[in-house]
Amino acid sequence: MGELEVRTVLVEPKSETNVGAVARVLKNFGFHDLYLVNPPHIGIKALSVASHAHDLLTRARIVSSIEEAVSDACIVAGTTAKRGISASKHLRMPALSPYELKEKTKDKGGILALLFGREDIGLLNEELKRCDIVVSIPTAPDYPVMNLSHAVAVLLYELSNGNSNSSSSSGSSGGVSSSSLPSSKRLKLASVEDKERLFNHIRTFLDEIEYREHKKEKTMVMLRRLFGRAGLTAREVQRLRGILRKAEWKIKADHRR
Amino acid sequence: MGELEVRTVLVEPKSETNVGAVARVLKNFGFHDLYLVNPPHIGIKALSVASHAHDLLTRARIVSSIEEAVSDACIVAGTTAKRGISASKHLRMPALSPYELKEKTKDKGGILALLFGREDIGLLNEELKRCDIVVSIPTAPDYPVMNLSHAVAVLLYELSNGNSNSSSSSGSSGGVSSSSLPSSKRLKLASVEDKERLFNHIRTFLDEIEYREHKKEKTMVMLRRLFGRAGLTAREVQRLRGILRKAEWKIKADHRR
Repeated sequence: MGELEVRTVLVEPKSETNVGAVARVLKNFGFHDLYLVNPPHIGIKALSVASHAHDLLTRARIVSSIEEAVSDACIVAGTTAKRGISASKHLRMPALSPYELKEKTKDKGGILALLFGREDIGLLNEELKRCDIVVSIPTAPDYPVMNLSHAVAVLLYELSNGNSNSSSSSGSSGGVSSSSLPSSKRLKLASVEDKERLFNHIRTFLDEIEYREHKKEKTMVMLRRLFGRAGLTAREVQRLRGILRKAEWKIKADHRR
Repeated sequence: MGELEVRTVLVEPKSETNVGAVARVLKNFGFHDLYLVNPPHIGIKALSVASHAHDLLTRARIVSSIEEAVSDACIVAGTTAKRGISASKHLRMPALSPYELKEKTKDKGGILALLFGREDIGLLNEELKRCDIVVSIPTAPDYPVMNLSHAVAVLLYELSNGNSNSSSSSGSSGGVSSSSLPSSKRLKLASVEDKERLFNHIRTFLDEIEYREHKKEKTMVMLRRLFGRAGLTAREVQRLRGILRKAEWKIKADHRR
C-alpha cells in the first residue's frame, strides 16, 4: 500500500468564499483530494478566492452525506474547537493536537479523512461520535474558534510532507524530507468496514452480557476513541473479534448444559 | 528578560478583509500585538471579518514605515514565499521553516517582529535585507503563494505556546495530554499499576473463556501494543475492567443455573 493520503472533507460549509480559500490552501500544501458535503453554490466568488487552485475546486467531489465522503477512508478524524472538559466525556476527549495527529498517522497507509464542520456550529455530536479521532488546534481560551479555511491551513501545514518538523528532520537543519517508512513495511490499517463490523460485534456482545443500557453508548464512544487513537490494524480487528467469539462460545456452551 | 513576545507587522496590506482576518488569527492564538504599515482604510468589512477580535483591530498600531514598527524589537523576521535557489544569494538563504524559527527563538526574551509583505509582491528586497531572519513556509512548488492571513495563521500556530509540538511534549509517548490545557483539565493517564491490573484481569478472562493457550501470549502482546499506542487513561482502564467483570458475571451466572 502507498503513503497516507489526506482527504479534506468540508461538512455543510455555508460560505463559498471559505470553500474557495480551502481549495487554495490544499494546493499550497500539495494536496488535491477535496470533498464537499452539501456545499453552497460554488460560483465566481469561490473561484476567485481559490485563485490558482480553481482547477482543484472544480474537481472537488460533491456528496450529500459524510458516509459517502469517508467510505473508503482508513481513519476518520473530526475537528473541533470545543475541547472536552471532563474525562468522563469520551466524545471530545482526548482531542489530539495537529502535531499529535501527524505523529499518530505518519507511518500509516490509506486515506485519512479530515472532517471540518459548519462555520457556526461545527460538527454535530452525532457526526463526531462516528469519528475515530478527534483533533483540536490549541487556541486561546477567550477566542478558540478559528475561521474554517485557517483551521484547514494549520492542519494541512502540519500534515504536509514539506513540513520540516517531522521527526526525521527535526534534528537536522536541512529538514524537508519526510520520515515515512517504505510502503512494504507499513501496517495495513483496518478499513472503515472492518471497524464497523468490530463495533457491531462489541455492541452485540455488550447486550449478551447484559451490560447496563445507560452505560452502553458512553462505552461505545470510549472504545471508538481508544481504538481511533491507537489506529487499529486489520490484524488486530481479527484478533479482537476472535476474543469476542470465544467469549460468546463460552457463554452459549454454558447455556447448553 | 521575560518571554518572547511576538509582534505581527503587516507591510502595506491592500485588502482590509485580510487585515480583519489577521486580527482574528492573532486572537485565536493568544497574541495581541499588531502593527499595520500604511494599511488601507479599516472599515466595517475588516471589523466584520475580525469578528470577536474587533477590539484587537481597533487597537492595532498604524505606522508609516517598517522602522517605526520594529524599533523596539530584538529580532526582525521577514516572511517570503520565494525561496532562494542559490546559496550565493544571501537575501533569501537560508530561509527557516516556521518550526526552525520557533526553535531558534524559544529561549529568547524581547520582541520578535514578524513581517508579512503585500498580497501581490510580498516584501521588497530592500525590506528583506534589513531582516535578521528570513522565514518561509514549506509549500508546494506549483503554488507556493499563500493568502496573507493563512500565512500568518501557520506562523502564529507554530509560535504559540499552546502548540503541543513544543519540545516539552514531543518526547512523551503517551501523547494524549495537550500542553495548552490547564493541568486540572488534563487527562489522568493510567498508572503502570492500573495497567498491570488490567492486563492481569484480561489474562484471567482469557483463561476463563478457554482461549487457546498457544495464542494467548501473542494476544497479550498485541493488547499491550494497542493500548500503549492509544495511551490509556485511568477512566478507560476502569471502564474496560467493568466490561470484563460483567462478562465474567454472565459466565458464572450461567454456571450456577
